[in-house]
Amino acid sequence: MSSVSSPVVIHTIPGSPYGRVVMIALEEKAVPYRVAALGFGDAKLPPYLSLQPFGRIPVMQHGDFTLYETQAILRYVDRAFEGTALQPTELKALARMDQVMNIIDWYLFPQVTATIPFQRIIAPLLGRQTDETVVAAAVPHAHQCAGVLDAILAGKPYVGGDAISLADIMLVTHIEYLSKTPEGAEVLKGTQLAAWLDRMETRDSVKATAWRPQSAAA
Amino acid sequence: MSSVSSPVVIHTIPGSPYGRVVMIALEEKAVPYRVAALGFGDAKLPPYLSLQPFGRIPVMQHGDFTLYETQAILRYVDRAFEGTALQPTELKALARMDQVMNIIDWYLFPQVTATIPFQRIIAPLLGRQTDETVVAAAVPHAHQCAGVLDAILAGKPYVGGDAISLADIMLVTHIEYLSKTPEGAEVLKGTQLAAWLDRMETRDSVKATAWRPQSAAA
Repeated sequence: MSSVSSPVVIHTIPGSPYGRVVMIALEEKAVPYRVAALGFGDAKLPPYLSLQPFGRIPVMQHGDFTLYETQAILRYVDRAFEGTALQPTELKALARMDQVMNIIDWYLFPQVTATIPFQRIIAPLLGRQTDETVVAAAVPHAHQCAGVLDAILAGKPYVGGDAISLADIMLVTHIEYLSKTPEGAEVLKGTQLAAWLDRMETRDSVKATAWRPQSAAA
Repeated sequence: MSSVSSPVVIHTIPGSPYGRVVMIALEEKAVPYRVAALGFGDAKLPPYLSLQPFGRIPVMQHGDFTLYETQAILRYVDRAFEGTALQPTELKALARMDQVMNIIDWYLFPQVTATIPFQRIIAPLLGRQTDETVVAAAVPHAHQCAGVLDAILAGKPYVGGDAISLADIMLVTHIEYLSKTPEGAEVLKGTQLAAWLDRMETRDSVKATAWRPQSAAA
């Protein structure tokens, strides 16, 4: 366990689902942190590229240790700090946690978050028109992801069982975004995932990190 | 620790870098396994989709436990079976391992493996012509990935330090593929990654899982 005396800084773009999951994990571990906010586009500029050469967010700095890749940061946060464990110990539960983290990266983010919530919520904030073709093409993918995640939940309150884990933390920002679109609300209706989202949204960590686009636009 | 008495089956397409890393990990742990080989396109057909709904490979079956997502399978294999540990214990070394596993998924595979080796090695086997525009556009990405990975190796023999880890296992199939193309050989020349590949290629696990395209085409 590392002491919390070294400051933790999270470089992210407000509203990014990936940046927010790191904040949620830190809230769950009760680790103080500071957010270094970037504007849209800043992640592709030299000062930030010295931290993350591929120009994606987030980056974590803990004292003199700099780390990027959300999954790596989440695992580091759980191991490095005291507090509630955010990974199950049972072998198969842990495998499901790992599986869901990668389902998010390979399918949920590119096929769903980057299409439906991006087109419905982010594009208008950037002064762009929603591309209805992109949204319509993504709806079957959203149904598929919701079905897969429901099958993994399989009646359990959380992905890994009775306690939340890094998979729930990584998932909540994507599903919450999706739920705020008409297509997403329709996809989620009556699913276990919708009940899971209600449970997750009662958590202080999720409430404390909610994004308020109006302040970002100000 | 789970007993090896339950059979381990890996569903994969011969030649797939992702399928092969799971085989390498099982070889390193000295776990017997059987490969259920799929032809190109079979991963999109119903029998396989009942194992992996998104139609990607590989899938692992260990007794009655079915798991997909390569990173999740690799972590499961290391935890479930006795033998050499494939994850470092030191916090920052472990974080670098996790980071590299995700750099592979986010950058090295889509920007480099799926472009240069795919166009130079796989496309001709499928009777398609190499798309030179795709290859040329990918060379700067290959240089960037090699530079990032060299900086993470930073003089160490392996990603996590003195011993190989899941990150090295996941990386070797991509870098070996890259090294077999003229562009890749040029990118790797004089890098730490080239010396690392030489070290990795001396391992029995890597030799035992080498793909021989002529037999696949037979």
